[in-house]
Amino acid sequence: MKLIQDPIHGLLKIEDWMIKIIDTQEFQRLRRISQIGFANLVFPGANHTRFEHSLGVMEVARKLVERMDVDEDERIEILTSALLHDIAHTPFSHCGEVIVEDYLGFNHENVEVILRGGEIGDVLKDLGLSLRRIRDYVSGRSCNVVKGDIDADRIDYLIRDSHYTGVAHGVFDAQRLINKTKFVNRRMVIEAGGLRSAESLLVSRFLMYTTVYHHHVCRIARKMFEKAVRFCIDEGSLNPIDLFYMDDWSLMNFLRSQEGYPRDISEMLMNRRLFKRALYVEMDRVHIEMDDVDRIEVEIAEDSGVDGRWIAVDIPKQIKGEEFGASVMIEGEVRRLDEVSSLVKALKEAERRSLKVGVYTPKDFVDRVRKTAIRYLNVS
Amino acid sequence: MKLIQDPIHGLLKIEDWMIKIIDTQEFQRLRRISQIGFANLVFPGANHTRFEHSLGVMEVARKLVERMDVDEDERIEILTSALLHDIAHTPFSHCGEVIVEDYLGFNHENVEVILRGGEIGDVLKDLGLSLRRIRDYVSGRSCNVVKGDIDADRIDYLIRDSHYTGVAHGVFDAQRLINKTKFVNRRMVIEAGGLRSAESLLVSRFLMYTTVYHHHVCRIARKMFEKAVRFCIDEGSLNPIDLFYMDDWSLMNFLRSQEGYPRDISEMLMNRRLFKRALYVEMDRVHIEMDDVDRIEVEIAEDSGVDGRWIAVDIPKQIKGEEFGASVMIEGEVRRLDEVSSLVKALKEAERRSLKVGVYTPKDFVDRVRKTAIRYLNVS
Amino acid sequence: MKLIQDPIHGLLKIEDWMIKIIDTQEFQRLRRISQIGFANLVFPGANHTRFEHSLGVMEVARKLVERMDVDEDERIEILTSALLHDIAHTPFSHCGEVIVEDYLGFNHENVEVILRGGEIGDVLKDLGLSLRRIRDYVSGRSCNVVKGDIDADRIDYLIRDSHYTGVAHGVFDAQRLINKTKFVNRRMVIEAGGLRSAESLLVSRFLMYTTVYHHHVCRIARKMFEKAVRFCIDEGSLNPIDLFYMDDWSLMNFLRSQEGYPRDISEMLMNRRLFKRALYVEMDRVHIEMDDVDRIEVEIAEDSGVDGRWIAVDIPKQIKGEEFGASVMIEGEVRRLDEVSSLVKALKEAERRSLKVGVYTPKDFVDRVRKTAIRYLNVS
Amino acid sequence: MKLIQDPIHGLLKIEDWMIKIIDTQEFQRLRRISQIGFANLVFPGANHTRFEHSLGVMEVARKLVERMDVDEDERIEILTSALLHDIAHTPFSHCGEVIVEDYLGFNHENVEVILRGGEIGDVLKDLGLSLRRIRDYVSGRSCNVVKGDIDADRIDYLIRDSHYTGVAHGVFDAQRLINKTKFVNRRMVIEAGGLRSAESLLVSRFLMYTTVYHHHVCRIARKMFEKAVRFCIDEGSLNPIDLFYMDDWSLMNFLRSQEGYPRDISEMLMNRRLFKRALYVEMDRVHIEMDDVDRIEVEIAEDSGVDGRWIAVDIPKQIKGEEFGASVMIEGEVRRLDEVSSLVKALKEAERRSLKVGVYTPKDFVDRVRKTAIRYLNVS
Repeated sequence: MKLIQDPIHGLLKIEDWMIKIIDTQEFQRLRRISQIGFANLVFPGANHTRFEHSLGVMEVARKLVERMDVDEDERIEILTSALLHDIAHTPFSHCGEVIVEDYLGFNHENVEVILRGGEIGDVLKDLGLSLRRIRDYVSGRSCNVVKGDIDADRIDYLIRDSHYTGVAHGVFDAQRLINKTKFVNRRMVIEAGGLRSAESLLVSRFLMYTTVYHHHVCRIARKMFEKAVRFCIDEGSLNPIDLFYMDDWSLMNFLRSQEGYPRDISEMLMNRRLFKRALYVEMDRVHIEMDDVDRIEVEIAEDSGVDGRWIAVDIPKQIKGEEFGASVMIEGEVRRLDEVSSLVKALKEAERRSLKVGVYTPKDFVDRVRKTAIRYLNVS
Repeated sequence: MKLIQDPIHGLLKIEDWMIKIIDTQEFQRLRRISQIGFANLVFPGANHTRFEHSLGVMEVARKLVERMDVDEDERIEILTSALLHDIAHTPFSHCGEVIVEDYLGFNHENVEVILRGGEIGDVLKDLGLSLRRIRDYVSGRSCNVVKGDIDADRIDYLIRDSHYTGVAHGVFDAQRLINKTKFVNRRMVIEAGGLRSAESLLVSRFLMYTTVYHHHVCRIARKMFEKAVRFCIDEGSLNPIDLFYMDDWSLMNFLRSQEGYPRDISEMLMNRRLFKRALYVEMDRVHIEMDDVDRIEVEIAEDSGVDGRWIAVDIPKQIKGEEFGASVMIEGEVRRLDEVSSLVKALKEAERRSLKVGVYTPKDFVDRVRKTAIRYLNVS
Repeated sequence: MKLIQDPIHGLLKIEDWMIKIIDTQEFQRLRRISQIGFANLVFPGANHTRFEHSLGVMEVARKLVERMDVDEDERIEILTSALLHDIAHTPFSHCGEVIVEDYLGFNHENVEVILRGGEIGDVLKDLGLSLRRIRDYVSGRSCNVVKGDIDADRIDYLIRDSHYTGVAHGVFDAQRLINKTKFVNRRMVIEAGGLRSAESLLVSRFLMYTTVYHHHVCRIARKMFEKAVRFCIDEGSLNPIDLFYMDDWSLMNFLRSQEGYPRDISEMLMNRRLFKRALYVEMDRVHIEMDDVDRIEVEIAEDSGVDGRWIAVDIPKQIKGEEFGASVMIEGEVRRLDEVSSLVKALKEAERRSLKVGVYTPKDFVDRVRKTAIRYLNVS
Repeated sequence: MKLIQDPIHGLLKIEDWMIKIIDTQEFQRLRRISQIGFANLVFPGANHTRFEHSLGVMEVARKLVERMDVDEDERIEILTSALLHDIAHTPFSHCGEVIVEDYLGFNHENVEVILRGGEIGDVLKDLGLSLRRIRDYVSGRSCNVVKGDIDADRIDYLIRDSHYTGVAHGVFDAQRLINKTKFVNRRMVIEAGGLRSAESLLVSRFLMYTTVYHHHVCRIARKMFEKAVRFCIDEGSLNPIDLFYMDDWSLMNFLRSQEGYPRDISEMLMNRRLFKRALYVEMDRVHIEMDDVDRIEVEIAEDSGVDGRWIAVDIPKQIKGEEFGASVMIEGEVRRLDEVSSLVKALKEAERRSLKVGVYTPKDFVDRVRKTAIRYLNVS
């Protein structure tokens, strides 16, 4: 057994079989994938990676699994799934996700894209671990420890992102929450004594979303990055499947090594010379569909006379909010968290209302783009 | 200038004129008044006092006043008010408050009961400080730094109570909140960039209320204490005005030195042998008025055959929630926080619903009392 | 099992048999004995008590014992000893210790003075726990988990005192230290990987001693308290054995209720009107023996014309520094920590040199007393 | 003014003129230079960068300068120097430093290599800032705020490295230290009340060196990196001056893009397949000179039959320990810290003794290399 020092959970106990997984190049690649993409352009401390997060999720899962009635085989399966749940993240984490979804039709939960081959494939075979079962834990089908409503993933990332951004919002009472969890038919249920901790977690999540994850600068950088990568794919210089094997460093260097647009965008990202907000309004005030983004970019470009490559229309995805449906045990009955807690119910509404649509463009084009954008987005 | 080490705010800068106030016996008495009464019966770390809290409120007020356009005289008045805002607390803080309100018709904000005489009276005179003006700052009439919707008092106690109880809920982003505050016509207004911090503070407050301040054990101990003190007042062995000069130590020793009931209660409190919950239900399910408490205790006593001194009916006061009305500046307009934030609006409702009515009695009487209580409280 | 929230160690798991011990009035009394006496006169946050410290020591011991090969009976004995190791502390902890040592010839490690009777005696009998064995664990004879060189007691108090005073010095890497401990013949041995943590602990301890525990204001208050208590004992109004049953509150109220000198001192302590330093010099520069304190007080009094009750000569006890001798495993060999670490060796010397002798008296007498004191203490 | 959230110092106030400096590409490059090189191979949280550290040093300097009697021009010069003190760091910070020293004869303090041109050069000209004066502050010639014995640089990096590694050692009482500092003839002098904080800082530094900075895995990775870079320079594929314009990402990608040895090393570093220790002994036990490293590598290679590119001889530089000579004011006299504090004196010795010489090579060669290395290094 090995001990690894983690700033969030203290000493992590790494069992021998885990070392084999961690030592693969697929897992080591996570060292070079930042946890929250370009958030360090706003929060300079946010340089943490999917590597340490994956170890952290394993640690939280370890504590949860102690409370579950599982045999050693299943324990190993769950902890492996915790370690590997983010193995299929593309560079800058969620920033590239929408691209692979569009071009390849799958996302970072399709861990088998990575796990079925390479060094990690061999290790899993050696350990006798079934790909299908890992996939089921990662997607939350088998049990909701790794992925579910309130799960090891969320518990780790909220505290970790808070530690590195320096934003106090992410602090909630994880220890109490974990200690007030029990398993009923292999599903996590929060006991009444953990209700406040669960509420606290959801509030943290809401505040982190609005303060950090959805900060307009983060969204702008993300859209710029996305446009440059799509450009390369469309041009044929980049195969989208390669994104699963690249890391922040190599992808950024790839963009830097191109001619023209991708190179320009990469330098703007590295030197923090970002698009500005030409428009930034509550989602309710805009009347368009998600699928219209490409078309609208073209229309705004034509109408404003600005090259469409320098215009980014950003419509955030609806937050799914599975956490709202977490199970809580109140007086012997299992209930949904958002039924039991009026605070949680309110968060749903507050989250919906916090979403904003943005149109971004370099400073010099802001005025021209704004006027056109207001029209094409039907801003009320 | 002197430096005092505070676990919450770091080094506090104590100016020379402050030392004079702090050195009076009236201020030193706050060292022996616990900040959150009997909460240490549940959270053993919660032994902090009104003394350190008062220094802390001064520190937060100091930072807020730096952002205000005040002259040196007013600065000193405000900071003095911050230091002295709790000088009229009775032993075990809020635990005795309802008693002095009942018997004397005033509460801990009537600081003049202490400030108009004694050593502190002399010091204020020496410093040329007007009692009336201090009173106006303490009550929030002059400006809302010390007392208002979101004020120095709340900012300090939430963080401090969190530090000592070990409950993570109380952590919010105070530094950002303070830095996103400005003053318009001498009233604090939170800028848009501070909205999330303000929400975070209100959520902390809600969670601290439900987890700590309204923990049933705290409420039980408080009611027991209250009954013992009322007994002594009614018997004539204690003058309610003396509560303003006593501290936790001397009042508990006074009870201990009595015969019979007060002595028994004091020993129960000290040895943590508390009443139990015979009834504990959401406030909505009970149909009685606040003023009926005494009558109902008598009725339950008669009906159950248990001596009324061993029955405590606990109807919590409605939380006033002035914080909900804090001013926020959104796009150049001053708005109420609960108008702007659906999260905050939800907290109002959540708080109302979190309140519980309790009927407490020693373990042996629980069954007998429960049956009667259900009837007399009209529990639905 | 019950969970108690502790600001230092998080949730403490309290097993059923522990609850019986904790619920006795002897253990509950520790709630009213401050952990570091009058230190809150300097560090206003330092209001923590022997109650929470005792729970904390149990928690650290629990983690250490997990690493030891013990049966369930011994585990319970050790954890009971951890819980009860401070049960025989007198009010204001170490402040009264020298008194009972002088008058009764024993100190707070003689836990049997409390444990052989009362509620706690009955509980121990019920649990089938032997007084003799507990005594042996508390004194470190049986094994050095509770008391030894580097032990559960020290690990808890350094971190706890740091948390409440706000002094960062007490922070060291406890988790690593515990995880790098193993047991050889039932004695704790620190593995090489824990050497830096052990050094760090000893440095913390040194810095806490010089900054907090030996702060001159703490020492002055302690001497004043000691003189008042001795006065009452000598006068016959206080039986020294009663100190084991009193707490901070009742002893201070006892002093307050006396006439003359003890009452005056108690009010000075409560209002923080303390003696001042007439003399304060490095111990090396003074040439007297510990036993001469009383004689010298008399001599200074006679010579200066100041009543001896208002003069306090303070010669600190040599720090024993058992920690220096902790066992460390270096390349398969068990060595003493101060042999292995030149840093630790240096601490020994630094500690010796940090000790100071003081002569304290009220402000008005300082000049008169200083002159005489220099002479009688043979200051070089 | 802008606010930046820093996990260490909270909200940093960024004045308008600072923004101009921060916005240059030279400063933005620091975002991609890790603060402590390959330490994240051991401490996965240690992904922090020179960018945030530079902001942090500015913040500490700002607090120190407030205590100094300087005019606005000098204030700006000092804070600029704080911001720019690390602008000439090469990729992976200290890891590449010895290379540029060898090939170019200067190190990261020669900030003029960067500052005399480029965007930053223009900004400094616009702000009317003299290169020479900045150089003098960075090197500590003009005053010792940015660089000296105990300086803003060290205060920031110790706390910051502790936060990100999760090692508690780095925590010391910075606020007290800063508040107990005054300036005498423009040199920082620590007042007596800050002595313990200064000791605490030096102890933190010692423990961080031995636990983190000199961890053998960090040293191994560093040597491997160094050998690969030297290889490229010697081969002519890399111009050492370019190191000042590259970052971690681009340099690692450059190595990855090469053929043979540099590519192999880069992949070993990225996949954490590191050399192992063939030899690792206290520096005293080895009898060679620093300059002999190259020669010895060749000799070991020849003798063991292992290609010299796979052998790394690592002789750490003597720690300079300027901090030991910090000025302390004791009873009105300015003294050296290591004269006044026996603890600090001991640290000097402890540091010297903690240094170790290592010989590293891939696992398969360890046995062969060890035997030869013992001989050639004259290990006693």
